[in-house]
Amino acid sequence: MTQSPPAVDAADRYDPRAFHDALVAHKLIYPSGVKGGYGRGEVFEHVLQCFDALFMRTGDAVDAKPMMFPPIVARELIEKMGYLGNFPQLIGSVHSFFGTDAAAREMAAKAAAGQRWEDMLGITEVMLLPAACYPVYPLFSGLLPEGGRIVTVMGWCYRHEPSDEPTRMQSFRMRELVRVGAPEVVQQWRDDWLERGMSMFRSLGLPVHSEVANDPFFGKTGRFLAESQREMCLKFEIVVPVVSLEKPTAICSFNWHQEHFTGKFGIRQADGTAAHTACLGLGLERSVLALFKTHGMDPDGWPYEVRTELRL
Amino acid sequence: MTQSPPAVDAADRYDPRAFHDALVAHKLIYPSGVKGGYGRGEVFEHVLQCFDALFMRTGDAVDAKPMMFPPIVARELIEKMGYLGNFPQLIGSVHSFFGTDAAAREMAAKAAAGQRWEDMLGITEVMLLPAACYPVYPLFSGLLPEGGRIVTVMGWCYRHEPSDEPTRMQSFRMRELVRVGAPEVVQQWRDDWLERGMSMFRSLGLPVHSEVANDPFFGKTGRFLAESQREMCLKFEIVVPVVSLEKPTAICSFNWHQEHFTGKFGIRQADGTAAHTACLGLGLERSVLALFKTHGMDPDGWPYEVRTELRL
Repeated sequence: MTQSPPAVDAADRYDPRAFHDALVAHKLIYPSGVKGGYGRGEVFEHVLQCFDALFMRTGDAVDAKPMMFPPIVARELIEKMGYLGNFPQLIGSVHSFFGTDAAAREMAAKAAAGQRWEDMLGITEVMLLPAACYPVYPLFSGLLPEGGRIVTVMGWCYRHEPSDEPTRMQSFRMRELVRVGAPEVVQQWRDDWLERGMSMFRSLGLPVHSEVANDPFFGKTGRFLAESQREMCLKFEIVVPVVSLEKPTAICSFNWHQEHFTGKFGIRQADGTAAHTACLGLGLERSVLALFKTHGMDPDGWPYEVRTELRL
Repeated sequence: MTQSPPAVDAADRYDPRAFHDALVAHKLIYPSGVKGGYGRGEVFEHVLQCFDALFMRTGDAVDAKPMMFPPIVARELIEKMGYLGNFPQLIGSVHSFFGTDAAAREMAAKAAAGQRWEDMLGITEVMLLPAACYPVYPLFSGLLPEGGRIVTVMGWCYRHEPSDEPTRMQSFRMRELVRVGAPEVVQQWRDDWLERGMSMFRSLGLPVHSEVANDPFFGKTGRFLAESQREMCLKFEIVVPVVSLEKPTAICSFNWHQEHFTGKFGIRQADGTAAHTACLGLGLERSVLALFKTHGMDPDGWPYEVRTELRL
């Protein structure tokens, strides 16, 4: 006795709340009391690992040198990157307790009494990692080998944007490829990957398209920076409808940094001339959420081609 | 022309600085400017994944339900856990920027001038996860299924203990098994795993032993809590010499929480009676560091049995 699903309009189909509740009902995610900080269930995680493995079998990701960094990063690096000026609203600064026994008792007593206690903390040497590739650039300082480098990292990133909308997370995993080398090689690499990324997502049956994009620069100056970034086509994104048809979700970005990082860290080509960097940033959770949105909450029922492609 | 290595005494063999430098020289780790926040290289990471997979093939880890949580956790949960009172020196509190455009410019200008800027931040709803299992307990609230539950998590943990000593990290991965159920079942499970864990490490050729242990409770009250914990044998650790022969490094702990968590979160057995929890916490990086220390910096040269066991 199969029945056609009831007719729904596009607004209902893309209701963020309904999507969230369906993910919870299927134990794909577990609410944790933190907006954008939910736990991931067994099936969600399995799909994520399969998807990441598919990406790592694609193009020159196979040849990229893997590195792994923790979710914390040197405070000095964030300062040097100019992150405070560009994205102050997104930072995560880590503070800890440096006090005496008596102070600790006072702090715990405040907390127990429901009072705020954080004024008793001091700053640590670390902040939360906002982008998986940041720790890579300082390691390239100096002359590059002939042909440059390609590295891959997968890291937990923090962005302070609490939201009930499942694709907007405070903490998420980003798979990145980082290419550093001759300017023309790096730009071509970025453009090739945009095509390759589109093909990969299409092979998974996702209704993606690509567009020129900008980073979420803060404030008035930020608007100018964003416009300039778009005019120069420094950033492209692959987007797909997940929680909205009109405002599709970015699942992968392709960023040509020109000399932004190589200048800061003194990275030059083997012959001493200026090097460029570009990176590809793949939102692992967002890609997985797009798969669940597009193909349904049970991967056993996904199209054969999609399951095969993912080796699910 | 092979030569015998020069004779070294035990103090030299366990020099933390020399071990650190050897790890760096072999690109097993990458310095990041953060004490205890280094990057992990390709070979280190491969061994870590193989080791984790070995553990997950062992005993009832196979049957444990996997969950995945981000490295952040609700501030309220840390407060409720009593963590501020017990381990204030280890906490990581996440602070961010909530201000205006003008305030952001002021903050960035301070940073650019080498002044401190963190007084312009406010607290977020999150802290850093100090133990991988913490987010699991709230999910168990209410009546357990018959036989209780077993769950596994692997998460990035933060502890504010900056150190140049490679086994003392601010950020590291912990694989945990969490068992919740009848008191006698849970205690037996903990004891069985202590034996099973010892066998696993011995199969990897590590000179481990086990001992009664305590958590690093803070201050004067902490010393009392630690003594009490030891007297009741609530915590065991498996330790192995890595940076010191006299003070071996804990690589796995076995913790019987009794009603500490089930009381806080209203977790009861299927028949409504009191439930207990226990957990096994496996330090993934520390275990890997122990393998490199014991068998050498090149896994290709490790004993055949060790490589086979790890499926390297």
